[in-house]
Amino acid sequence: SRSIRLAVIPGDGIGREVVAQGLKVLSAVLPSDVKLETEEYDLGARRYHATGEVLPDATLESLKGHDAILLGAIGDPSVPAGVLERGLLLKLRFAFDHYVNLRPSKLFPHTATPLAGRPDIDFVVVREGTEGPYTGNGGSLRTGTPAEVATEVSVNTALGVERVVRDAYERAQARSRKKLTLVHKNNVLVYAGQLWKSTFDRVGREYPEVTTDYLHVDAATIFMVTQPERFDVIVTDNLFGDILTDLAAAVTGGIGLAASGNINPDGAFPSMFEPVHGSAPDIAGTGKADPTATVLSVALLLRHLGHEAEAARIETAVAEDLAERDGAAPRSTDETGDALARRVAG
Amino acid sequence: SRSIRLAVIPGDGIGREVVAQGLKVLSAVLPSDVKLETEEYDLGARRYHATGEVLPDATLESLKGHDAILLGAIGDPSVPAGVLERGLLLKLRFAFDHYVNLRPSKLFPHTATPLAGRPDIDFVVVREGTEGPYTGNGGSLRTGTPAEVATEVSVNTALGVERVVRDAYERAQARSRKKLTLVHKNNVLVYAGQLWKSTFDRVGREYPEVTTDYLHVDAATIFMVTQPERFDVIVTDNLFGDILTDLAAAVTGGIGLAASGNINPDGAFPSMFEPVHGSAPDIAGTGKADPTATVLSVALLLRHLGHEAEAARIETAVAEDLAERDGAAPRSTDETGDALARRVAG
Ligand SMILES: CC(C)[C@H](C(=O)O)[C@@H](O)C(=O)O
Ligand SMILES: CC(C)[C@H](C(=O)O)[C@@H](O)C(=O)O
Repeated sequence: SRSIRLAVIPGDGIGREVVAQGLKVLSAVLPSDVKLETEEYDLGARRYHATGEVLPDATLESLKGHDAILLGAIGDPSVPAGVLERGLLLKLRFAFDHYVNLRPSKLFPHTATPLAGRPDIDFVVVREGTEGPYTGNGGSLRTGTPAEVATEVSVNTALGVERVVRDAYERAQARSRKKLTLVHKNNVLVYAGQLWKSTFDRVGREYPEVTTDYLHVDAATIFMVTQPERFDVIVTDNLFGDILTDLAAAVTGGIGLAASGNINPDGAFPSMFEPVHGSAPDIAGTGKADPTATVLSVALLLRHLGHEAEAARIETAVAEDLAERDGAAPRSTDETGDALARRVAG
Repeated sequence: SRSIRLAVIPGDGIGREVVAQGLKVLSAVLPSDVKLETEEYDLGARRYHATGEVLPDATLESLKGHDAILLGAIGDPSVPAGVLERGLLLKLRFAFDHYVNLRPSKLFPHTATPLAGRPDIDFVVVREGTEGPYTGNGGSLRTGTPAEVATEVSVNTALGVERVVRDAYERAQARSRKKLTLVHKNNVLVYAGQLWKSTFDRVGREYPEVTTDYLHVDAATIFMVTQPERFDVIVTDNLFGDILTDLAAAVTGGIGLAASGNINPDGAFPSMFEPVHGSAPDIAGTGKADPTATVLSVALLLRHLGHEAEAARIETAVAEDLAERDGAAPRSTDETGDALARRVAG
């Protein structure tokens, strides 16, 4: 499409700073005949404190009118844990049926990793985004008393598991190594585990070229640090995916580089792109935040909307920029944004 | 006490091999006036295939008569996922109210770590052992159909959370750094998270010398590879503890060295000690299994039973043995057991 109607949710903490750089690079990379229309939404801690609103229905409705959403970060220590995360971020993922939470992990050359020996890391995690322990099913009884019982229910449906597993097989099939690993904990979570494993096996019969593998989540964390090169595509549930992708980010240069897409592959709702990192209130306003994760999320956004060439240009620019930064003095958020914008335009 | 009545469950795969070495070292370290009575229990895949039994009531009853249990490993690919894990291993943890699952992590000198820069790692994870998503609460509806719904319920009680949190504070208080980190995911799992966090804060007021910290589980995995030296004592739920301790093992020399104790601090039931690793059917019978994790679990067992000097002797022997092995040709399971037995006796 020759126009992009983009909803922008800067959010909290460093969200605003990194989103500004993401937009800078997006404007710079787009050909002049693609019209970019952005609409900014004031959501997050500031709005919550000012009006008590987290995500009004009218706002949710209005967001639907966009081709995609670019989000910075949500969450602030001044707001009780969960209010913004569940009321805004997860609400968007659920309302817009973002069942594929796509999180690529690649160790770029010239990027620091805590791992000795610099393994060759290039995989993508397909994290389920609309089910599991994230559904908000749960509650507490006799709250605040010595007899309290608090529960959290992980809900898994055949529909929900099959569609994300199928998406992961498609992605594995399209990659050169064609390997798909299911991560779960089916020796303990036997009901959910059985649904995931049987779906994985059954759908796999339609993809004979894809090599498959199963790992318990605990074992997967071991391989993530001892043998990350073994992974190509990983499919996993919402919570395991949350945990594994932070670890994956840590071994591939840190959370400052990790991009993600909350994708509704059916196209019924706008997909949402955001860095994996949070709002990092400790460094907000200092100019220290690395906007690269947001810029790489913009690349995922462009790819999702069919602008493959522009997405690839951004990824190349990031690789070149990381090489340039290697060993150089630390740069500000703005300087990195400018450097990337120059490269993609050039 | 001057006698130890020990129940031994070798279990599956490499379980038998490593347990043999654990017992060898135990016999060697004990002073001659401490009588060791062992009783071996045939439980695991072989028994299951032969008789269909996993853990008969009479066996459970009989196990109660011991001072402690030494377990090798449970699980075999020939048995459906979960049958032995839940019917035997978790059944024991629950029946004997092993609410403190203690997992120390220490990077010994002369031990390989996948982390560059060799951080100074010495912490202990106090993993809750009788609640959370491990309770077996859950089920599936319309199983095997396209309309299936599978659930897993994490159950958390004030009683269960408080006792393990209190145990963790006691351990933190007794250590030199006196630092306790709660790991949870209270921005998403708000009901359980609120119970954990409020209990953690409330009990903490009784331990003013202990410095406290809270981390989401995803962030904790990042620190585990970028800054593991920040951890002293970690307290966390059953599933997060499972995941974190495998990762912790990976960064401190691997699962071949990670020991654990399933402890019932009240002493109402025998505590159970086991290596963190599984049955590793791929290397069973090859003599490649490292028995060190089991030997270190024997040290935890001795400490639990009040034999502190012997526990410390084992730990010193392991440190010395690891130094001796550094750069040397790989040894067999038996050779390592012999070497350790010689050292503790010497
Ligand atoms: C902020 C939080 C709710 C969120 C999640 O758990 O999904 C974040 O950790 C992420 O990975 O996007
Ligand atoms: C085998 C399995 C049930 C067990 C667990 O999940 O607790 C194991 O991974 C462990 O950590 O002891």
